[in-house]
Amino acid sequence: MSAITIPTTLAGYEASRKELIMTDRAQRADYKKGELSELEALADKTIRQVRRAEAESIWSLEYGGIPHPFPGMEFLTGRRIIVQTKLYEILGKMPKGGLLHAHLDATVNVSFLLKAAMKYPAIHVRASTALDATNIGSVLPQLSALPEELRTSGDFALTDSNYPSGTWVPIAKARETFDPQLGGPEGFDRWLTAAMTINPTEAYVTHNTVTKIWQKFTSTFVVSAPLVRYQPIQKEYIREFILSSIADGISYVEPRINFLRDAIPFVAEDGQRPLTHREVLTDFQTVVDDVKAELRAQGREDEFIGAKIIYTTIRFITVEELEWYLQDCIALKKEFPDLIAGFDLVGDENVLKPLTYYLEPLLKFREMQEKAGVSEIPFIFHAGETLGDGSEADMNLYDAILLGTKRIGHGFSLVKHPKLMELCKERGIAIEVCPISNEILRLTSSMHMHPLPVLLNQGVSVALCSDDPSVFGNMGLTFDYFQVLAASEITGLIQLGEMAKDSIRFSSMDAEEKSRALAAWQRRWEAFLEYAASEGQKFLAQVGA
Amino acid sequence: MSAITIPTTLAGYEASRKELIMTDRAQRADYKKGELSELEALADKTIRQVRRAEAESIWSLEYGGIPHPFPGMEFLTGRRIIVQTKLYEILGKMPKGGLLHAHLDATVNVSFLLKAAMKYPAIHVRASTALDATNIGSVLPQLSALPEELRTSGDFALTDSNYPSGTWVPIAKARETFDPQLGGPEGFDRWLTAAMTINPTEAYVTHNTVTKIWQKFTSTFVVSAPLVRYQPIQKEYIREFILSSIADGISYVEPRINFLRDAIPFVAEDGQRPLTHREVLTDFQTVVDDVKAELRAQGREDEFIGAKIIYTTIRFITVEELEWYLQDCIALKKEFPDLIAGFDLVGDENVLKPLTYYLEPLLKFREMQEKAGVSEIPFIFHAGETLGDGSEADMNLYDAILLGTKRIGHGFSLVKHPKLMELCKERGIAIEVCPISNEILRLTSSMHMHPLPVLLNQGVSVALCSDDPSVFGNMGLTFDYFQVLAASEITGLIQLGEMAKDSIRFSSMDAEEKSRALAAWQRRWEAFLEYAASEGQKFLAQVGA
Repeated sequence: MSAITIPTTLAGYEASRKELIMTDRAQRADYKKGELSELEALADKTIRQVRRAEAESIWSLEYGGIPHPFPGMEFLTGRRIIVQTKLYEILGKMPKGGLLHAHLDATVNVSFLLKAAMKYPAIHVRASTALDATNIGSVLPQLSALPEELRTSGDFALTDSNYPSGTWVPIAKARETFDPQLGGPEGFDRWLTAAMTINPTEAYVTHNTVTKIWQKFTSTFVVSAPLVRYQPIQKEYIREFILSSIADGISYVEPRINFLRDAIPFVAEDGQRPLTHREVLTDFQTVVDDVKAELRAQGREDEFIGAKIIYTTIRFITVEELEWYLQDCIALKKEFPDLIAGFDLVGDENVLKPLTYYLEPLLKFREMQEKAGVSEIPFIFHAGETLGDGSEADMNLYDAILLGTKRIGHGFSLVKHPKLMELCKERGIAIEVCPISNEILRLTSSMHMHPLPVLLNQGVSVALCSDDPSVFGNMGLTFDYFQVLAASEITGLIQLGEMAKDSIRFSSMDAEEKSRALAAWQRRWEAFLEYAASEGQKFLAQVGA
Repeated sequence: MSAITIPTTLAGYEASRKELIMTDRAQRADYKKGELSELEALADKTIRQVRRAEAESIWSLEYGGIPHPFPGMEFLTGRRIIVQTKLYEILGKMPKGGLLHAHLDATVNVSFLLKAAMKYPAIHVRASTALDATNIGSVLPQLSALPEELRTSGDFALTDSNYPSGTWVPIAKARETFDPQLGGPEGFDRWLTAAMTINPTEAYVTHNTVTKIWQKFTSTFVVSAPLVRYQPIQKEYIREFILSSIADGISYVEPRINFLRDAIPFVAEDGQRPLTHREVLTDFQTVVDDVKAELRAQGREDEFIGAKIIYTTIRFITVEELEWYLQDCIALKKEFPDLIAGFDLVGDENVLKPLTYYLEPLLKFREMQEKAGVSEIPFIFHAGETLGDGSEADMNLYDAILLGTKRIGHGFSLVKHPKLMELCKERGIAIEVCPISNEILRLTSSMHMHPLPVLLNQGVSVALCSDDPSVFGNMGLTFDYFQVLAASEITGLIQLGEMAKDSIRFSSMDAEEKSRALAAWQRRWEAFLEYAASEGQKFLAQVGA
């Protein structure tokens, strides 16, 4: 090809250069798309100008507590700048397609969760010792829905010096009586919130390694689960998850629900009876159907196509236990054929069991399904969420693909594997990329070090996902789309649109749902392009860029 | 291929897995090498065991001032652990092949430079103000070789409260008279050393972005250049560079020398007369010939094959100025045909001029050479030393390759470019990868985030380089080899050996020199494998691993 011959004239050089760049980027979704419509071209160009203008304005100012702001910087520090940008405002209106990687227990704002919890007398809180200024930063709250006979009138405040260690207090009472010295009710909220989220100091200073931050990360689930999994709250929680997703432009969700017998149970309203897994799915289905009906009534069908669930359990169970969960998943699939989308194993790949540990039952899964006469439940595995090069977590990528995974959760280390990237393209395996999650969990220091551009340029299909927004603060998908757009000079609106489309194409919706979802997305996308172009032009005119 | 069919039996699975891993790694140099000799296999296996043993021992201890030690961690913090490892001790003896990317002005220990400087009455130092405890951290030393008439007797100490701002003091005198309150002579050494090196706080806290750390990085050259470029010191410096390289197992060096008229001149012994570029090359050639003769006399020819120079200037000059440097380079090539190996432009790609800015003269370079009747001077360009995705620095990769670069300096962002990696393989363009430089200059937070494994798995040829060891503290190549080996579970001794060989194959030596260098390397490699295996086994026996 002419790109290989070394040109000697300027004109010849320019031609070769143009061709070389095109060839290098030929596999990118935005390049494969070919000729852009006038509107697409205008919107894309405008957004690039807005990005450049803000890089030189809002991102070049001095901020207290932010030593070196730049677009794509550490999310937990840059968030307060991001929300002030026009780019963020515009992306908020973008139709995002489907959310394919999110853990249900971590999908809703902590503030919503706490407000909900205050309404239920069953919800109690306790601490291992009386709270004071010296220990409030280290003592974790323990929350629980208690049965009638264990509930208390809450004669002690958690901050009373004579608070008897480990005594349950009704959550609302505990909040009211929280020592003003420690901030009173707002101080109580801060204490709980800190235990359910990751803050900048933890991510970037005290827990600045993958192993350390995972310890904090895991503890947030231990604290919040008893609230999230209390049936009355869970119903509100699921509803809020779906409504807030819709508000962010997400028209389909495919959350992972973690099932772990005994360890993290779902509890009925009485605070006692453990819910069966079928009850959990029934509640989920009911909420989804309600929301769909409401939107239909409002003529907003385009905004929400539906939801499915990926059944997951944690990769520290025994091989025998896994067989039980596989059977449980199959039983649920029989009863909820349209709801169960796949099976996965979750938890820190770097310290827990690799897929090879579970090889025998995993290889039997399809046969088990055939025996049970259920339609196929695909694996949708987490794999390669690691910095390792040849470590067990990195090697999980080989096994996920050999076991026929439908998509790959994270696949952070996939870029190191030329043959596996090729197979992902051949087999239509999309990667669920979670930019902000990867950064906060210390796989990358900023979006600029994230391997996403390698995947895009290799032509591997990608769906952007939020993973655990309640812990990271990246609610919806706007923040993740923002980080990806802000950290590149190649990726623009068109590439974001292609990723949104892929999040529908590679979802677990059936053919009919997909075509409906794609058609709806296209209608909203056209309207969004109009908005992005005019809103962006207005902004550029204002700032004189 | 069978890797695509999903196996159902354990045996079938294991076979497919093995094949898939082989296919995925087929382009790696260590896999392409094929069957290993018994000795190679034993040494490789042993070193992997030593690496694992030390990951669980010396890297798992608690260290004051090192919050989270791990193999491959930030170099400036981990260095004191690295030097205690058996892995480091063993790699120190490895024959490293050629050093293809190092800037001459930053190749020798600062302590050696200071000791040398003390011997010359011409060398003076001054400060913009009297030094005290409050300003010693911020006031930079200015050094200079002065002509007879400007030299002083040094009646003031730099630390005298009445020191007249900007007054020159002979360096030895300045050292003797340095205030004991500020550490006396050792305090003086610390002050100069801090100005010529990057410390952990600068790299990881105060200057923790590419742009900020480059500011500190650049300032170290401004401080040290007047010493390094003073003819008597320069000769000692070049000699020490070569001898210390040989001591580290490097048998060929190809440093870049920065030529910049007026700005950073080379000065003769009298402290006045600027050296011509031909004098600089003559001195360099003389030192090289002396060292070669000495080694020959000692029967150590295998340890040093020779040295060549890459002519560089800085990418902030004008287009017209570049034409002068190209002509100057050609003139020198005429006189030193065996010494000049190539031409390059250096400096922070993210803020200085892109290659396209200099396109016209660069495109004319070959024609200029033909006119002058000199044999070809290849470009050996820095390119892609950036976190940018589509930024000018990232785009430099297209231009470096289109302009026919022989190798690529850094090529950090090359992994994002599938077509360019392909062209590097087709055209035999090796990448000069500088792992520790990249980490300290904030392109990556640790070796685990470095893209090197992507290049190795894609089959792109790599030569490991130290870049600016006097500033980073990674003298020789042992530290860079260590970081690469420590941060992977795939890369072992065999891959390191292949990179060492490539550093000879892709050097600018002529065919005869290369075959001599390769034969010598092979002899030393066999001996090293013997040593690595036995030394490693001894160690494993001691620690009972």
